[in-house]
Amino acid sequence: MSEGSDFQKVLDYIDANAERTVADLQELCRQPSISTTNVGIREMAALLEARVARSGLGTTLHETGGNPILTATLAGGGDKTLLFYNHYDVQPAEPLSEWDTPPFDAEVVDGAVIARGATDNKGNIMSRLAAFEAFLAVRGELPCSVKYIIEGEEEVGSPSLEPFVKENADLLAADGCVWEDNTTRVDIPVLSLGNKGLCYMELTCRTANVDFHSSNAQIYENAAWRMTWALSTMKDRDENVLVEGFYDDVLPVTEIEDELIRRIKPYNGAERVEKFELRGFLLDMKDEDLPRRHLANPTFNIAGFDGGYTGEGVKTIVSARARAKIDCRLVPNQDPYKIRDCVRAHLDRHGFEDIGVELLFTSYPAKSDPEADIVKACNAASQRLYGEDAIINPFGNGSTPTYIVLKHLGVPLSSTGVGRITSRTHSANENLKVADLIDGAKWMAAICEEFSQM
Amino acid sequence: MSEGSDFQKVLDYIDANAERTVADLQELCRQPSISTTNVGIREMAALLEARVARSGLGTTLHETGGNPILTATLAGGGDKTLLFYNHYDVQPAEPLSEWDTPPFDAEVVDGAVIARGATDNKGNIMSRLAAFEAFLAVRGELPCSVKYIIEGEEEVGSPSLEPFVKENADLLAADGCVWEDNTTRVDIPVLSLGNKGLCYMELTCRTANVDFHSSNAQIYENAAWRMTWALSTMKDRDENVLVEGFYDDVLPVTEIEDELIRRIKPYNGAERVEKFELRGFLLDMKDEDLPRRHLANPTFNIAGFDGGYTGEGVKTIVSARARAKIDCRLVPNQDPYKIRDCVRAHLDRHGFEDIGVELLFTSYPAKSDPEADIVKACNAASQRLYGEDAIINPFGNGSTPTYIVLKHLGVPLSSTGVGRITSRTHSANENLKVADLIDGAKWMAAICEEFSQM
Repeated sequence: MSEGSDFQKVLDYIDANAERTVADLQELCRQPSISTTNVGIREMAALLEARVARSGLGTTLHETGGNPILTATLAGGGDKTLLFYNHYDVQPAEPLSEWDTPPFDAEVVDGAVIARGATDNKGNIMSRLAAFEAFLAVRGELPCSVKYIIEGEEEVGSPSLEPFVKENADLLAADGCVWEDNTTRVDIPVLSLGNKGLCYMELTCRTANVDFHSSNAQIYENAAWRMTWALSTMKDRDENVLVEGFYDDVLPVTEIEDELIRRIKPYNGAERVEKFELRGFLLDMKDEDLPRRHLANPTFNIAGFDGGYTGEGVKTIVSARARAKIDCRLVPNQDPYKIRDCVRAHLDRHGFEDIGVELLFTSYPAKSDPEADIVKACNAASQRLYGEDAIINPFGNGSTPTYIVLKHLGVPLSSTGVGRITSRTHSANENLKVADLIDGAKWMAAICEEFSQM
Repeated sequence: MSEGSDFQKVLDYIDANAERTVADLQELCRQPSISTTNVGIREMAALLEARVARSGLGTTLHETGGNPILTATLAGGGDKTLLFYNHYDVQPAEPLSEWDTPPFDAEVVDGAVIARGATDNKGNIMSRLAAFEAFLAVRGELPCSVKYIIEGEEEVGSPSLEPFVKENADLLAADGCVWEDNTTRVDIPVLSLGNKGLCYMELTCRTANVDFHSSNAQIYENAAWRMTWALSTMKDRDENVLVEGFYDDVLPVTEIEDELIRRIKPYNGAERVEKFELRGFLLDMKDEDLPRRHLANPTFNIAGFDGGYTGEGVKTIVSARARAKIDCRLVPNQDPYKIRDCVRAHLDRHGFEDIGVELLFTSYPAKSDPEADIVKACNAASQRLYGEDAIINPFGNGSTPTYIVLKHLGVPLSSTGVGRITSRTHSANENLKVADLIDGAKWMAAICEEFSQM
């Protein structure tokens, strides 16, 4: 039997077992595991350990002081070891009223699993387990050794991951790493070679210990107005961040990164405008402008704000409290603590000393070597399955902490996964198409196969 | 028995029956009557009708299509008729967590009734009923005839009051009117001779039909940012309203109004700063600047705003929706519909055509003749009880709709009541001091007495 047809059997096995893979994803999704509110975490870790062990890997659940981290290993053929990363925690599901089916029912509707976590990140987990199982069933072993790390705090900044990786460098040592990715899949795979950093701050303003009747608005300060004025000094309508120092550490885009970005095809703006009912894109960007802006730029985003009365109907008060959640995606070499300091100094300089700044979440930006074996293996896997080079995003879009592996293990990595931009990760009606789950499992199998031959 | 000592018996009766008056106020407060959410309205109207009838007045509960309006009459001595106005509805009690005792328990703590509605407006109702009962008990009749109108929609803009007053002008005809007031009492009484208008608008912005993962903030519009930028074009940090046309119809302050404002003593800024934990007053105003600004200026207030994720902790999204509740207090001769039009035109002119403006509440500003008999009677009552002239606010602070009586009945009026600025009307821990309730009853008795002699 030729190697080619043997690998085809692996793919066929994945197809033949698709129904069970979907059912297993539904089971994982039905267990809530919301790290920000600490709902269902321990139950999820136990369920997941059992599921990974069922795939034939040797598992260990590590206590961390925070949420448990699951590691797993399975020796395979050849001398290469490939490390996989995922997380089992999910974002909150609110606002619940916006879901068409309950977020933890995980129903299949129109060929997609609808659930919080369907793509981010439980669908990614299932795609990997399905690939491992296919090799074991068809060949009795994997083409390379695999290690697996699945944490439970990705959505709250992975506070336990960095110390764990530092302390367990030997346990996790590998020749390459496949990180998770949730939203970038198109018809051919997309690789991301790093991550944005994140500086998530909560700004708070309190102008009195009581909401005054609004007939006193002539004389009392209004916290909602102060927050409005403060925010308006921080970014202008042309999207320029006006916080002094914000851009200081941004690294220029290198020649090879520039070339990789040029190879990314323009986004289909018209399709998104229609699907998401947009007025258009920021700065009236055209399709061809979107990838560069999306990948190479940092952001200064309002993830939410509130102040005063936010219920229905009329209440006439002077808002005594206001709050804004500011979510900055950082590019190499910005530092989240320095950005916080810049915001603090900016507020002070502009007369908003009374507005508090609390750092709720930080992670560092990072980028991996675009010429490493794991990147070549992914590209060869794309050629094998789709007959085309993969799309390579040299920076990454999200803030999943690849910097921890890059910094402490020195393992080059590629992030890739099963989700599309229509997967609505972090939103109501998060979903994963069944076809993408199964295709994602084949994609993981092809990466293992190619990596073993590097 | 001299008239003086006879009136003293009325005051003594009020003191002697204080305990029952407080208990009756507690009973009224324990019945929620929240017009904006339609909670307890009918139960309150029935309870109130029974209570007013118990004071000896002939009552009628009128269906209006909205909340019922209670009218009551009682013939008294002399040829004068005095009309009283109150409302039985209250503001919502949220946020409930900020109350020290539940808002509808109406407990007496440290000599004050703590309840939603304690001052605004049920305490005012009880002060009037206690005064009527004292005259009837001591003299067998009131010194003048009284008419009473108590509506149930004041907190939602009194939509039924104007048609009712127009259709029942004969029923309500009077020589003067005592309107309600909730927050202006100091050691000597304060009279307000009109009201601010109100233009309450909800601004809404929607940039997509989904909250995107914030790793897309480089390319998608953010509704919270758009709302921030839009609001920041509407008022500057020096409190200048920048909406074109906003000030166009503001009438200049007349000479007699100017003189009345000058006679109002400076606010005790230091006391308020300490009590309410303020940084200071708007525009660094000094004590002597506060009354003029407070009484003569219109406002452009944010009563509340929200957008994106407003829960605790971290959620990383591009806010697809934002909302701001704008509460403009208007002075004569501003028109709430014209103000709404100015805001709409301003948004359009500044590139915010996508931001919606919905008018939730309107009322017109008005002012009454400072030289009318009812004003003189109140001033004489102040001299009688306190040995000093009353403080006269020629404009009024709140948006209680005195303009309806001024416009359709042509009855001059004076607003006065039992509350202080510390009564926290519209806030958590709304309260009325028992001493102020009883003193307020005496004040109402003295006004009836003086008005009968005009």
